[in-house]
Amino acid sequence: MKPSLLATTRLFTEIGRDFHTRGWVLGTSGNFSTVVSRKPLTMVITASSVSKGDLRPADVLTIGANGAPLGKSVARPSAETALHIAIAQSRGAGAVLHTHSVWSTILSELHGAAHGLRLSGWEMLKGLEGVRTHEHTEWVPILDNDQDIPALARRVVTVLEQGPAIHGFLLRGHGLYTWGDDLAQARRHVEILEFLLETTGRMHAFRPK
Amino acid sequence: MKPSLLATTRLFTEIGRDFHTRGWVLGTSGNFSTVVSRKPLTMVITASSVSKGDLRPADVLTIGANGAPLGKSVARPSAETALHIAIAQSRGAGAVLHTHSVWSTILSELHGAAHGLRLSGWEMLKGLEGVRTHEHTEWVPILDNDQDIPALARRVVTVLEQGPAIHGFLLRGHGLYTWGDDLAQARRHVEILEFLLETTGRMHAFRPK
Amino acid sequence: MKPSLLATTRLFTEIGRDFHTRGWVLGTSGNFSTVVSRKPLTMVITASSVSKGDLRPADVLTIGANGAPLGKSVARPSAETALHIAIAQSRGAGAVLHTHSVWSTILSELHGAAHGLRLSGWEMLKGLEGVRTHEHTEWVPILDNDQDIPALARRVVTVLEQGPAIHGFLLRGHGLYTWGDDLAQARRHVEILEFLLETTGRMHAFRPK
Amino acid sequence: MKPSLLATTRLFTEIGRDFHTRGWVLGTSGNFSTVVSRKPLTMVITASSVSKGDLRPADVLTIGANGAPLGKSVARPSAETALHIAIAQSRGAGAVLHTHSVWSTILSELHGAAHGLRLSGWEMLKGLEGVRTHEHTEWVPILDNDQDIPALARRVVTVLEQGPAIHGFLLRGHGLYTWGDDLAQARRHVEILEFLLETTGRMHAFRPK
Repeated sequence: MKPSLLATTRLFTEIGRDFHTRGWVLGTSGNFSTVVSRKPLTMVITASSVSKGDLRPADVLTIGANGAPLGKSVARPSAETALHIAIAQSRGAGAVLHTHSVWSTILSELHGAAHGLRLSGWEMLKGLEGVRTHEHTEWVPILDNDQDIPALARRVVTVLEQGPAIHGFLLRGHGLYTWGDDLAQARRHVEILEFLLETTGRMHAFRPK
Repeated sequence: MKPSLLATTRLFTEIGRDFHTRGWVLGTSGNFSTVVSRKPLTMVITASSVSKGDLRPADVLTIGANGAPLGKSVARPSAETALHIAIAQSRGAGAVLHTHSVWSTILSELHGAAHGLRLSGWEMLKGLEGVRTHEHTEWVPILDNDQDIPALARRVVTVLEQGPAIHGFLLRGHGLYTWGDDLAQARRHVEILEFLLETTGRMHAFRPK
Repeated sequence: MKPSLLATTRLFTEIGRDFHTRGWVLGTSGNFSTVVSRKPLTMVITASSVSKGDLRPADVLTIGANGAPLGKSVARPSAETALHIAIAQSRGAGAVLHTHSVWSTILSELHGAAHGLRLSGWEMLKGLEGVRTHEHTEWVPILDNDQDIPALARRVVTVLEQGPAIHGFLLRGHGLYTWGDDLAQARRHVEILEFLLETTGRMHAFRPK
Repeated sequence: MKPSLLATTRLFTEIGRDFHTRGWVLGTSGNFSTVVSRKPLTMVITASSVSKGDLRPADVLTIGANGAPLGKSVARPSAETALHIAIAQSRGAGAVLHTHSVWSTILSELHGAAHGLRLSGWEMLKGLEGVRTHEHTEWVPILDNDQDIPALARRVVTVLEQGPAIHGFLLRGHGLYTWGDDLAQARRHVEILEFLLETTGRMHAFRPK
């Protein structure tokens, strides 16, 4: 049974408070979603322009496959709703989390010209669903940022199709998108990818550039 | 209806605790204000020389347009009261927040000789009121620090008049001033500008200087 | 009298919450154990693939000297159970803690080719059991990571036998193992070694490499 | 009226929890004291070898001018009790706080050969008692570390006599000592000096060395 809107709001609130404390969703950055049903696609998503550090019931709403709110809603869905829908549909993800940390932002810029970065040899990779060894190489694509969200969503679909094994991607100057079968798995992926991006960023200081 | 002094104190206390935990208002640094009425200008402001990590009702007071306390008050208003009044009057701001983080202090020094720094291309900029795209360029003026507060307040007014689009400025070796229509918006601007200053500061390590 | 499973679970939960907040056990990384009895060896250990930030009773289980759960258990013991057993047996440790911080991961990589690093001259070393002066030199071995845990456990035993004075070791790209007579001492060793690894890592930026 | 032992324990506990969270008193590092009476000198001080993150009544004790516990006490006073007494006597301080952060440790090493470092031009300096302008220059002496505490205490007295304007000093590889008229002022000095040491440390990365 799918979690109710209230239970999802509670989970979003808890995740939001934790991520906000860590500096991963400052300002109104970041957005969270979860899939309620598949046919037709129905998702619960955070509203546009709200702080994720102190989410209230009015900050969370239900949307359909076209991104429009179901039922009457004062709140507007996140401006990046189309990206969440693209990931849910293309990947079959049950939950999508977008964070916007200092390190994910820096890495997206440092490796932006290469359109991605490789994470390899880290034990932490084993926490990504389906990865069995630290010898795994994870490719994290980096997409140029865009205010034309439908166009960006089409590029996201292409990246997902070209990289069936990826667990997340970066938007340049804009942070991280990752997902999972459910919110707990997506949150685990956030923690792992944020950890590896910070580690990689700090390691740069010790390497020839 | 304007928030009462008690409600404002509660908001200041919550903001102060959060900022103190993040290291943005250590010692007795930082100060907060909000506008109660416009004609005549009446503001609520934190007292001088108190820790913002654990604000008490006695640490918050009401002042008039000349910066003097209204009614009898044991506490003295913040030494930087004139800057808050200048911003409230010149900008029409409803709330002013001053933070003093490690990164805002460092950036104010690194770019002090240039009298400001540019923030450009970051998605996070979109959280600043009125900014619609990451292609926005935000100029953050840096003013030399001064213990002559009336003189500093006059320079602040000049900077605000010369930069009608700015959302904040740095005092050299002294941290960040930002504002908003209300406390929630001003707090959002603090989070966004502190994030971008930290990101910019950490990026310096990867760039030719 | 040995602590009961419930009391141990409470301690693990408290340690896990603190370490998770500090970023030392993100994702499903890290694992904790404590010795319940010696003959035969019985340990309480965290389960495999659970977040240490919010441990529940079902996430903690009792195992025997062969690493198999005692009694029926839904949870599987940590994949690294054999390392905990090796340390408990070879060292007589009463508790073993594994953390996986950004700095321990970075240091394990920077000094991996040298198979270890020296910590010397720091007052903080005196918090390690049996160390009486900051003039102490602590050798922290670094072992190559391996998914063959029995093989890794044998190498751990060798390292422990060759370094009777060591208080912990790093797995390359995988973080820190340390231990103590009880959980409080092991936790103290985690704090001290994580502090010294962060200090050493940040110092690298100021030294010729 | 001097605070009772119970009230002091509560304040130590609150300060310890905050400093521990910030990573300023990890392991068993750091110690806190406050003066109860002057003639004869009586102080309350944290016990040796306890975590400051979770202080209990048994972790705090009363001592006389010779550093010995007054009344029967299971706990031993901090190994560095003589330094606290030297500061209380030589400076007339009402409270002494010792922290041991990553940045104070690094700075004590980077500037150890120069026997001190200068903090100058920072607004944050104005939070130090008696400082009226950011144009102030604060000299922070650095003493070589020593396990001979009486000898170290004599060197501390010399440093205090030679620097009547100083607000704190560093022990090399060992962290910061500061003080104040009372615990609140000493805590403010900790926050300010830790802030300025972190700022100075991070600034090193941008300067010719």
